[in-house]
Amino acid sequence: MKALSFDGALQFVDNYPTPEPNENEALIRVLMAGICGTDREVMKGYREFRGIPGHEFVGVVERVNGSYSGLVGKRVVGEINCGCGLCEYCLKGLEKHCAKRAALGISGKDGVFAEYVTLPLRNLWEVPTHVADEEIVFTEPLAAAFEVMEQVHVLPTDSVLVLGDGTLGLLIAFVLYQAGVQVTVGGKHEVKLGVAARLKIKTKKVEELQKKRAYEIVIEATGAAEGLDEALNLVKPRGTIVLKSTVFDQGEINLSRAVVDEVTLVGSRCGPFAPAIRALADGHINVKPLISAIYPFEEAMLAFDQAEKRKMLKVLFDFGHRR
Amino acid sequence: MKALSFDGALQFVDNYPTPEPNENEALIRVLMAGICGTDREVMKGYREFRGIPGHEFVGVVERVNGSYSGLVGKRVVGEINCGCGLCEYCLKGLEKHCAKRAALGISGKDGVFAEYVTLPLRNLWEVPTHVADEEIVFTEPLAAAFEVMEQVHVLPTDSVLVLGDGTLGLLIAFVLYQAGVQVTVGGKHEVKLGVAARLKIKTKKVEELQKKRAYEIVIEATGAAEGLDEALNLVKPRGTIVLKSTVFDQGEINLSRAVVDEVTLVGSRCGPFAPAIRALADGHINVKPLISAIYPFEEAMLAFDQAEKRKMLKVLFDFGHRR
Repeated sequence: MKALSFDGALQFVDNYPTPEPNENEALIRVLMAGICGTDREVMKGYREFRGIPGHEFVGVVERVNGSYSGLVGKRVVGEINCGCGLCEYCLKGLEKHCAKRAALGISGKDGVFAEYVTLPLRNLWEVPTHVADEEIVFTEPLAAAFEVMEQVHVLPTDSVLVLGDGTLGLLIAFVLYQAGVQVTVGGKHEVKLGVAARLKIKTKKVEELQKKRAYEIVIEATGAAEGLDEALNLVKPRGTIVLKSTVFDQGEINLSRAVVDEVTLVGSRCGPFAPAIRALADGHINVKPLISAIYPFEEAMLAFDQAEKRKMLKVLFDFGHRR
Repeated sequence: MKALSFDGALQFVDNYPTPEPNENEALIRVLMAGICGTDREVMKGYREFRGIPGHEFVGVVERVNGSYSGLVGKRVVGEINCGCGLCEYCLKGLEKHCAKRAALGISGKDGVFAEYVTLPLRNLWEVPTHVADEEIVFTEPLAAAFEVMEQVHVLPTDSVLVLGDGTLGLLIAFVLYQAGVQVTVGGKHEVKLGVAARLKIKTKKVEELQKKRAYEIVIEATGAAEGLDEALNLVKPRGTIVLKSTVFDQGEINLSRAVVDEVTLVGSRCGPFAPAIRALADGHINVKPLISAIYPFEEAMLAFDQAEKRKMLKVLFDFGHRR
């Protein structure tokens, strides 16, 4: 099959072996996939991953290895963490914290930048037919945005700042704004902030943010070590900083301000699929303005080059089977 | 009056002007005072403090400037943060987060290493007569230990690690142990760990701690930047790290583990006096094993030298008026 393969360098190949589903796994034909910041970290060596990267996708179940075949032919999205199923985390539905987990296209399991991918049946969510592929493919990053609300009790009276105007930062802002929260996006890029502004979300250039502790909650989604330092300057005493950047550079960080101001920092990663699918199906969250480009999968190498550019938001692959 | 004065260097003087209480303040004759790690940070330049350091004390109210005189002659301990009384934090009883606050012997207000000190009446707590001075003088640091329980819901089934075997670490361990929590103290000093061990609290040398994520809650009370790094190695996914070290060195910290493991970090500082006084009055917490030395106040300079030694826990000053 055609696939993007990473072996220290990224290359497009057309003879990658099609994967065989293990027991209770499905073989899925990929319809669309999205490039995430984490994929670019993987290219830099994150988790020392080798194989097919990519974890944001929508696809159609081609075949199932197991007795349950109800999903065959259905359009699905899939959760990316595959746990052992037996440990204390898996038993609580927290496969993402299983010590033995594989993570799709990130660690221990080939990902979705390929014509076919396998995933356990329990990871799959059938999606409503009326939602377009290029919207429902946002389920995974939108779930990561909902994780903020899953972990932190955001009050109706809170002032919330999202630091970072990348796709994840904007998705978090969309979720908060939709919930009626007073939210501001702080960023560096006119074009990206414009996406939020057109949806009536308050935006500020980072240099315009007042250097005082003004926000009950600051969501750090910049992907840079300076982001946390900035967040500590902006959060109120007894406030909360949500850490959303998957990979921080090793940075010189003095946390004494967090101690003196009794700030809470909450690490936050993958999130719940159900509210993300619902928000897309109900049209509560409009992700289309976040699509910077859609490339045929055959042009994946070019797409990766383009995705590096700072003005870019989400770059999608189209595998040519869209309905 | 006799006082320890800090002006870049510490000196013992006998002609410091006796303070005059402002309106609704009390003039307090100090009976005993304790040296805290923060005092040593002040000597290194923390908050650029100048004046009389010290904030742990027990004293007797000598005189009140105001209409309420019920405390005159009473033995008291005192909260160290003096807020504006009008801001959102002061109105919630969180003077410690008032942006305009002074902190006794730390910032903007002369402290307790002197024969007399002044404090607002609302900061004072009369203490039960049956508790000895050398016990009740622990109220302030014990309150800081209780702050952990005030901020974090510690479950009866949690495994908790206190990293750091200094006075604060041990006080936190005492509070948790008394509450029935399964607690381990990790430290570097045989003598200090021995204090906990003799009270039946589980102890481990830091190098004996398994380098795996085994604790629901880790309380970082080492006072060193490496402490947080160590804590991140030991806390379970979705666990909590309480940051108790008032002054961290600027350290190279990579918080990506906190993001991936969705760890919560909670900055924690001063705490509630009521449960601390109650625990001392009821004999639930025995602080006497934490006293390494009691010096007459006149030997304060020598006492400070001694307090620097790593084997030392609490060093107290006796002002010669104890009952």
